[in-house]
Amino acid sequence: MAPVGSKRGILERLGAGEVVIGDGGFVFALEKRGYVKAGPWTPEAAAEHPEAVRQLHREFLRAGSNVMQTFTFYASDDKLENRGNKLTFTGQQINEAACDLAREVANEGDALVAGGVSQTPSYLSCKSEDEVKKIFKKQLDVFIKKNVDFLIAEYFEHVEEAEWAVQALKATGKPVAATLCIGPEGDMHGVTPGECAVRLVRAGADIVGVNCHFDPMTCVKTVAMMKAAVEKAGLKAHYMTQPLAYHTPDCSCQGFIDLPEFPFALEPRILTRWEMQQYAREAYKAGIRYIGGCCGYEPYHIRAVAEELAIERGFLPEASQKHGMWGSGLEMHTKPWVRARARRDYWEKLKPASGRPLCPSMSTPDGWGVTKGHTELMQQREATTKEQLRPLFEKADAKY
Amino acid sequence: MAPVGSKRGILERLGAGEVVIGDGGFVFALEKRGYVKAGPWTPEAAAEHPEAVRQLHREFLRAGSNVMQTFTFYASDDKLENRGNKLTFTGQQINEAACDLAREVANEGDALVAGGVSQTPSYLSCKSEDEVKKIFKKQLDVFIKKNVDFLIAEYFEHVEEAEWAVQALKATGKPVAATLCIGPEGDMHGVTPGECAVRLVRAGADIVGVNCHFDPMTCVKTVAMMKAAVEKAGLKAHYMTQPLAYHTPDCSCQGFIDLPEFPFALEPRILTRWEMQQYAREAYKAGIRYIGGCCGYEPYHIRAVAEELAIERGFLPEASQKHGMWGSGLEMHTKPWVRARARRDYWEKLKPASGRPLCPSMSTPDGWGVTKGHTELMQQREATTKEQLRPLFEKADAKY
Amino acid sequence: MAPVGSKRGILERLGAGEVVIGDGGFVFALEKRGYVKAGPWTPEAAAEHPEAVRQLHREFLRAGSNVMQTFTFYASDDKLENRGNKLTFTGQQINEAACDLAREVANEGDALVAGGVSQTPSYLSCKSEDEVKKIFKKQLDVFIKKNVDFLIAEYFEHVEEAEWAVQALKATGKPVAATLCIGPEGDMHGVTPGECAVRLVRAGADIVGVNCHFDPMTCVKTVAMMKAAVEKAGLKAHYMTQPLAYHTPDCSCQGFIDLPEFPFALEPRILTRWEMQQYAREAYKAGIRYIGGCCGYEPYHIRAVAEELAIERGFLPEASQKHGMWGSGLEMHTKPWVRARARRDYWEKLKPASGRPLCPSMSTPDGWGVTKGHTELMQQREATTKEQLRPLFEKADAKY
Amino acid sequence: MAPVGSKRGILERLGAGEVVIGDGGFVFALEKRGYVKAGPWTPEAAAEHPEAVRQLHREFLRAGSNVMQTFTFYASDDKLENRGNKLTFTGQQINEAACDLAREVANEGDALVAGGVSQTPSYLSCKSEDEVKKIFKKQLDVFIKKNVDFLIAEYFEHVEEAEWAVQALKATGKPVAATLCIGPEGDMHGVTPGECAVRLVRAGADIVGVNCHFDPMTCVKTVAMMKAAVEKAGLKAHYMTQPLAYHTPDCSCQGFIDLPEFPFALEPRILTRWEMQQYAREAYKAGIRYIGGCCGYEPYHIRAVAEELAIERGFLPEASQKHGMWGSGLEMHTKPWVRARARRDYWEKLKPASGRPLCPSMSTPDGWGVTKGHTELMQQREATTKEQLRPLFEKADAKY
Repeated sequence: MAPVGSKRGILERLGAGEVVIGDGGFVFALEKRGYVKAGPWTPEAAAEHPEAVRQLHREFLRAGSNVMQTFTFYASDDKLENRGNKLTFTGQQINEAACDLAREVANEGDALVAGGVSQTPSYLSCKSEDEVKKIFKKQLDVFIKKNVDFLIAEYFEHVEEAEWAVQALKATGKPVAATLCIGPEGDMHGVTPGECAVRLVRAGADIVGVNCHFDPMTCVKTVAMMKAAVEKAGLKAHYMTQPLAYHTPDCSCQGFIDLPEFPFALEPRILTRWEMQQYAREAYKAGIRYIGGCCGYEPYHIRAVAEELAIERGFLPEASQKHGMWGSGLEMHTKPWVRARARRDYWEKLKPASGRPLCPSMSTPDGWGVTKGHTELMQQREATTKEQLRPLFEKADAKY
Repeated sequence: MAPVGSKRGILERLGAGEVVIGDGGFVFALEKRGYVKAGPWTPEAAAEHPEAVRQLHREFLRAGSNVMQTFTFYASDDKLENRGNKLTFTGQQINEAACDLAREVANEGDALVAGGVSQTPSYLSCKSEDEVKKIFKKQLDVFIKKNVDFLIAEYFEHVEEAEWAVQALKATGKPVAATLCIGPEGDMHGVTPGECAVRLVRAGADIVGVNCHFDPMTCVKTVAMMKAAVEKAGLKAHYMTQPLAYHTPDCSCQGFIDLPEFPFALEPRILTRWEMQQYAREAYKAGIRYIGGCCGYEPYHIRAVAEELAIERGFLPEASQKHGMWGSGLEMHTKPWVRARARRDYWEKLKPASGRPLCPSMSTPDGWGVTKGHTELMQQREATTKEQLRPLFEKADAKY
Repeated sequence: MAPVGSKRGILERLGAGEVVIGDGGFVFALEKRGYVKAGPWTPEAAAEHPEAVRQLHREFLRAGSNVMQTFTFYASDDKLENRGNKLTFTGQQINEAACDLAREVANEGDALVAGGVSQTPSYLSCKSEDEVKKIFKKQLDVFIKKNVDFLIAEYFEHVEEAEWAVQALKATGKPVAATLCIGPEGDMHGVTPGECAVRLVRAGADIVGVNCHFDPMTCVKTVAMMKAAVEKAGLKAHYMTQPLAYHTPDCSCQGFIDLPEFPFALEPRILTRWEMQQYAREAYKAGIRYIGGCCGYEPYHIRAVAEELAIERGFLPEASQKHGMWGSGLEMHTKPWVRARARRDYWEKLKPASGRPLCPSMSTPDGWGVTKGHTELMQQREATTKEQLRPLFEKADAKY
Repeated sequence: MAPVGSKRGILERLGAGEVVIGDGGFVFALEKRGYVKAGPWTPEAAAEHPEAVRQLHREFLRAGSNVMQTFTFYASDDKLENRGNKLTFTGQQINEAACDLAREVANEGDALVAGGVSQTPSYLSCKSEDEVKKIFKKQLDVFIKKNVDFLIAEYFEHVEEAEWAVQALKATGKPVAATLCIGPEGDMHGVTPGECAVRLVRAGADIVGVNCHFDPMTCVKTVAMMKAAVEKAGLKAHYMTQPLAYHTPDCSCQGFIDLPEFPFALEPRILTRWEMQQYAREAYKAGIRYIGGCCGYEPYHIRAVAEELAIERGFLPEASQKHGMWGSGLEMHTKPWVRARARRDYWEKLKPASGRPLCPSMSTPDGWGVTKGHTELMQQREATTKEQLRPLFEKADAKY
């Protein structure tokens, strides 16, 4: 374990060609554990239940993560008080608590702390560049006070808002990473991944890539498009992916929130650890060196990334003490036919059954085709009313 | 929260017709979090990483569990040192630590502590009744010293060994629950669920049922067969189910360990929260009042049980503060088409896609047809050798 | 080709241990060709479009069939004029035309002519034994006049009606085969397959078995149950199966008419030729020697049966001149990757994809639980009215 | 029925905006009936078994086809004697017999006769334009002598060869249709569908489109791309589709021959009649007026096209006398729950199950990436040898 204070920075590591392993998404993982509410997806648990957030950080650290991202997703004031969501802690309290937890656990191992901001309801509601940047600024003030190691602007559907975020982050002097939640079709205004990446680098991002919304292989493909365009433009950057841990071959440009199963019936799509190893290998081969995850990731998924790249990194993560590589732990199983599965080619070839013969293998995404500026996307502080819901229910039912 | 010391016992609750909600399985949940090794599946984390075990207890408590089961699965000495498994804590240390953690968290809410024993390699290896009972006795000594509230003999494939366990547990004077890991076809010697249940009740079990190995609906069906036989025999008992959180329509009498996906590719089979609510309802309708879970359960699965039975129990669990019933939290989502999913009939009707078009929906279980007494089931202290593995690999490959 | 007149009878062949290959079902095959109407499923094409019926006979003959079954399914007078069905030929004309066509084609090869009767609306409507037998008698008069080689009573859901049919057929002095359209759960009154078979043999059947309603493997299993019971009763019989060419793992006791896909969306369930060879092998191994097909069979399915049993029979059918065994014809394909499929193990191992990622792999059967005597099963001459349909539509919709 | 001789030509009909319904593919349909050999796929049945070919023509005519295409697919001399294929009739005899049969049945109704040529092994083997055109010329001589109504150049993978064919056909003075077997990715040399269409029109084709290799919706999409390009180029043409009756969402640019299931395990992919009606509607909406089918089509599929467009055409086909629109024939079924399916919305919404829970819904296409000029595509008169097959088997096995 690296002595505290002696840690090398994110750009130093990436510059040296090292693999940096990210963590997984906190909102989905903590929703399953009972600390985050699906719908608002806000991170008040950092203040309300620090023991739960600390434990999840620790599990990712043990699994091999080099980055403890502050649990500040959707922790902007305009999102914390959206559509009737009520909290007992202020945005500042939540952001501060999140920084403290990330630092506490980062100090237990070889991890850096990254302060994160994400897209805002204000942008969707057509607020001005100034107003949106002010929102980011409030979170950044906390991150600087708490002295995080670097900054991440993540989960942006529109490159324009991401550029504003990068500019705001860059002004702090910290290294900046920026990820959009887009696929090969580009952002919600149709800007291609390549052009998005070039714009983000020009805005000041040191690391660019994608996070959330799409499955691992789709994300690798998208970042490969970004890398090609950045290089073609004669620019330099590092690359990162933090994909879903869900298979989403059926989603369109809006990603997994368009799938009928989002967010409460995604279970059958969860990747196995072996599929995660494939992702890590493909990401590595594509030249991506910051490799992490987002919604759906559990600590064992990150461990799988670390195990796949153990030779490149030169070591296994701590949690591998509780995991036989490629199923070798099954050599200790009491049943002979399970011991017969203690080998790599068994797991690599297996096509796992869903156990759901009455269900299909793909869905039809919603595809309402509304984005920034559309009336139905205008945000409001007060709760959604029954009168507002009725036409949505009807529109949805008309699909079938 | 009930004041410590004032809690009513398990038989008092069940006798009054109350619903008692169990917890979920710890070995699978902690394997994903990086603290349990698949293969041996032993619970040394209770001593090694108490913070992780405590946190999981706490999540189940928040989700609505009335029972904190000591994390002592497979914590018998003959299993802890099986096939090369090496531990730095003794069996006694592990069992004691597990009791302390369960009691600590139980005291935070309205939960009882249950000390648990499970089947032994010794029985599979044809050791005598005396030898097997001695193994149970060692764990029981800890449970009595730590004054657990009641005892559970769980995960038995052979009713004969379960009877021995019940007799050993009954001798302590504590209330005794007993669950087999069997389905409608009965135990590994072909004894029907009905006869198994009658024998367990006659051996002294106050509560009988099944746990693990089969999906929720199959478990409810099996316990219904047990209940019918117990009643036909003129006996009295309470009933419990602690099923998998996996769909297993394709498994045969040996349960999910026979499925090719066990244990590292079961993800697509994980139940959604809505499917879990169906299970809770069906279990309740079948007269089962101790309703919990086993492998695959995450805290949100237990919360779903508690939410489905909220009216019968008269309250919601604490974790429901972070969950809108039937998806109502989505009313706060920023996207209109996701708000359109904020309703019960949407989630009840949805047939979730697997996202895996190259995979089947069912598998062919292994079905090697070996059980107690078979050479390949004889356990050994030393690690499985390459020479022992080779014929197993060949036998497995011949299947395809 | 055997000289006309010299043919050995059905019992002679079966008595000598020979394999007798049946034909496939005519109503489904001719429905696809445009000559039979789904719903009434009546065989007026024998009189209206003899060229189409003759051609189908010929294709089955070329494929290896030893039996030309008269196309007289549902050709009883009470069925021909049921629920508004109107025909321009009389029942007698249809039955006569069918006999002539079967004989004409049988004479072109080594095939026998079998006159067939099937279950009647009269029985479902609770008519007396006398009335039902009179209906069979009308068809039998034609069969005797046309001098068919043997008789088949097929597609009976109730063993009682089948017994009446066997008695009527037996009175003619011709050999009698009898098949029920049941599965392992037995007939619609719950009589087991074993008991059904014993009763049919006692009523005079020389050959017993099942046809239609279930997939090949289920039919083999059912006939195996029949055989065991007949032998246990100390009786003697020959055995036959004429299953569906559809996979129906999801149907309950009423068979494939309960499946939501019946009859217009069964396509994805059609067996491949290789699956048909498996069936032929399993049927042979189970001691069944009269092996044919029913709904869904096309000539190439019968050819597959004949090819699988070519060694046992000593020859290949004529149509195999247009088929390379186990795909060997692909050696002549222009594309190398298709030539790479010219081998048995390729086709035996292949798990064919459905090409339908939005569809499930199994359905929930209807299971209305109504049978003989229920009001909704009472038949009528006049067309079903809108008033009669409405409650049926409502009942069906309530299922979802 | 139109009096013979008075029939309006193909261009007259299309010019008047009428819908012209094609027939289905003969090689697959007759393979199932036992008259065509899979692998060579040659049409000698026209001479060997005219009754079988005549019957299939008649069934398509009854189903609504306005075109009787001569059964001359792959009837070029270089294909008839490829890779060891031996025939007892000459190419000329086969082509003449095919013309006579098509004319005989066309005279029974309102159908035209189209003489068809298709791609040649000579082109794949890099023969010159002259040599290839000479091959077409031999078939054309027969078509002119037999006075077919128009000509079709179909099933071309390379637009260059199709242009040569169109030029050869155009020289006869007959109207010319030309279809490629390509999808949205274009021909085997990467020429886009739009450019292909423009080149074919410029070469003299009056009607352009696609046939075979892809499922109906993919073909409609491809022809829409063709139409857009032709119109953009300021040219004029009519459009046609003759797709597969198989769902092929998983195939790449080479079409269904790349799918592992080709050609002996495609059954689960067969379209239902309702899916065929959807195709007819979409084709019509896309401005396609010559709507037919290819491999996998049975007469009832063509009837479905005719029924969907009955209002536009002003009449139903003869075979609809044996078919209730949208399942209405089920009103006559004896079972009430089947009568409950006698309605359009039931069939339109149904997602048909495969009945194959052990199978996936999609496959991985072979994608060997070899085309015209590659050694493995060089054709030979003599049979493929074992030595030639071995490396192909090995290459194929390496995929898994």
